[in-house]
Amino acid sequence: MHTLLRSHAETVVQASIAAVQPDGAVRRALSGISFPGRVVLVSVGKAAWQMAKAAHDCLGGRIERGAVITKYGHVKGPIGNFACYEAGHPVPDANSFLATQAALDLVSGLGPKDTVLFLLSGGGSALFEKPLVPAETLQDVTAQLLACGADIVEMNTVRKRLSAVKGGRFASLCAPAQVFSVVLSDILGDPLDMIASGPAAPDASTSAEAVAVAKKYALRLTPETLALLETETPKSLSNVTTQITGSVRELCAAAARSCASLGYAPVLLTDRLCCEAREAGSFLASVLRTHADCETPTAFLAGGETVVRLTGSGKGGRNQELALAAASGIDGLPGACVFSFGSDGTDGPTDAAGGYVDGGTAAALKAAGLDVFSVLRENDSYHALEKTGGLLFTGPTGTNVNDVAVALIRPEKM
Amino acid sequence: MHTLLRSHAETVVQASIAAVQPDGAVRRALSGISFPGRVVLVSVGKAAWQMAKAAHDCLGGRIERGAVITKYGHVKGPIGNFACYEAGHPVPDANSFLATQAALDLVSGLGPKDTVLFLLSGGGSALFEKPLVPAETLQDVTAQLLACGADIVEMNTVRKRLSAVKGGRFASLCAPAQVFSVVLSDILGDPLDMIASGPAAPDASTSAEAVAVAKKYALRLTPETLALLETETPKSLSNVTTQITGSVRELCAAAARSCASLGYAPVLLTDRLCCEAREAGSFLASVLRTHADCETPTAFLAGGETVVRLTGSGKGGRNQELALAAASGIDGLPGACVFSFGSDGTDGPTDAAGGYVDGGTAAALKAAGLDVFSVLRENDSYHALEKTGGLLFTGPTGTNVNDVAVALIRPEKM
Repeated sequence: MHTLLRSHAETVVQASIAAVQPDGAVRRALSGISFPGRVVLVSVGKAAWQMAKAAHDCLGGRIERGAVITKYGHVKGPIGNFACYEAGHPVPDANSFLATQAALDLVSGLGPKDTVLFLLSGGGSALFEKPLVPAETLQDVTAQLLACGADIVEMNTVRKRLSAVKGGRFASLCAPAQVFSVVLSDILGDPLDMIASGPAAPDASTSAEAVAVAKKYALRLTPETLALLETETPKSLSNVTTQITGSVRELCAAAARSCASLGYAPVLLTDRLCCEAREAGSFLASVLRTHADCETPTAFLAGGETVVRLTGSGKGGRNQELALAAASGIDGLPGACVFSFGSDGTDGPTDAAGGYVDGGTAAALKAAGLDVFSVLRENDSYHALEKTGGLLFTGPTGTNVNDVAVALIRPEKM
Repeated sequence: MHTLLRSHAETVVQASIAAVQPDGAVRRALSGISFPGRVVLVSVGKAAWQMAKAAHDCLGGRIERGAVITKYGHVKGPIGNFACYEAGHPVPDANSFLATQAALDLVSGLGPKDTVLFLLSGGGSALFEKPLVPAETLQDVTAQLLACGADIVEMNTVRKRLSAVKGGRFASLCAPAQVFSVVLSDILGDPLDMIASGPAAPDASTSAEAVAVAKKYALRLTPETLALLETETPKSLSNVTTQITGSVRELCAAAARSCASLGYAPVLLTDRLCCEAREAGSFLASVLRTHADCETPTAFLAGGETVVRLTGSGKGGRNQELALAAASGIDGLPGACVFSFGSDGTDGPTDAAGGYVDGGTAAALKAAGLDVFSVLRENDSYHALEKTGGLLFTGPTGTNVNDVAVALIRPEKM
């Protein structure tokens, strides 16, 4: 049974990610559009290479030059004459700053008839950055925000004020050129000014909110940093056109279709999940435990983006932690499994896309001398799942539309 | 809309609690039973008065004498010649020890044909206690376990070893008399040896597990206490007959029926919920957010017993905290509410049974100068919900079969 469930998990992961590739979305966004002047491409985010490739396939030589900025390991080859950069994520590094400056050089000196084709996907907050504070200060603030469990909305509210390109400031720098922006959403509810910290979107967040976040988590800030938090960002931008595409809803729908094709009745619980990873795992396990006597195979789906509470210094990611936390709750259930994965293929600072557990995982961990509670306290889900064959690998996928967790239950007699 | 939702919440609370009163269960358990010798009653737990009353109504003068031990405020009047005691919960106090000794005196000197009619409900762990350690030591260990977020299974594994009556030891003390035990379950999955720490059930937990809990939470223990944790409890009992009745499943079913009668399509997510209260609230809010476009009113139900992570020193309970934590997630949704309540009518150390929030609660809190995050950090849900009219009151209900959380969503146009 567990072999079957494991193979179903692999099928659902592959099918879901295939369904949310950005290529088609970019092609649809560009079809029928004509650009009057010069076209310069800037593609930023975990899906930057894929999106830039699709744009190049569509527009070919019409794009004069281009800059692609993505995460390490995500450039899959040259694209025309575009410059492709890889940089740090989730904490920006020297290459983030270098690549961003190159992109800014590319868009300088354009006229009002020219267009910056700006392709944006999740991860852009770290990858696309020209800090207004010393690099060490920015890294420190980011690390503080990650460690205290701030959600992505709070992180971006703070970080966009420490940046020359975020919160609409990139679009201001492109003026007088037009910005044609295609956005692949990785934030629940698709708030444009939050995706990659909205380099080409009027900023809905305010200085007051940024200061409130700093206060809420008792961030240690220099007076210079605090002064920047108090500085406002653009509230309207006249040179920007935006098309938004892709989202966790599409990911959930694709996962549900895949589950249905494997014979499971899909039940979408939510596509707005935002609680702690380990508690979401416990919740899903209790759903399965209750439905263990179901008459037909059922798949419960919860999409979104959970947060990890850092209590240790192990290796893992929110999807691995969610899955591992479900292991105790489904311990001994023969027909149950829980798996969770990020559509970008890289969960936290690991090479796994997510994690998988079933009714045999807790016993396997015990046999290996591990218990779920201690592993979670150490945030060391990667090494525990490695021992039970519970890591899901896809490699970088070229897309980024949040995560989905799937809880499968099959009647015992099947 | 919010007035309607609030009144629906009240209806569901009242109907659910009415449906899980222990009276009927006790009457069913005793019907057709005849006792050969003398009958002595010992009734312990939050539902002790109600259960003893039902037994008295059934058997009348057949019961020679009786002791009823329940929580403060739960004795609703005299029952025949029974002695009724009120005592401390969740931390046992001097009255717990006094009442327990009185019950032990009552059952001493019985013969092999005599019967101890033992009626047990949740809360018995604190109420029924004769400690093998000084009272201060027991209170300290209990307080440590509560503060570190240990679940009830872990708490009982430790506490039954520090007790002369728990873990089957009460039944041993009743011998040679027979023990006829009627149990109202308040633990998910109904493990007999865990309900009220199983005074009349062979103990499935082991010394090794008790020591492991102490290690897991780094409990501060005296050498004497540690030696008791290492002492085994009875693993079989030949003089006990047990009938188990009532459970969170019945509570969830009753809540679902009540929702259906109000026009909501009920969806039982789980009756085994055991994650952190605030994260369960967030999860349920994200479920409602996703289903905000539903075409028919829907009720999502999650029964069980969540845990509270103590990070502050405010006033509240797990149900109030669960509800309050949902407020941000459903902020602004006109047709959504989340409420959660304990079937015993007392949530944590408060006089409220639980809490209620709707799409207007977050704004109301903000207007009152409060934010959900800070209130939860202080574990002060009671005072926040008090400000928004979100406390649910039932008074002590006389039953105790865990909690249920209900998330209602109605189409906007209704």
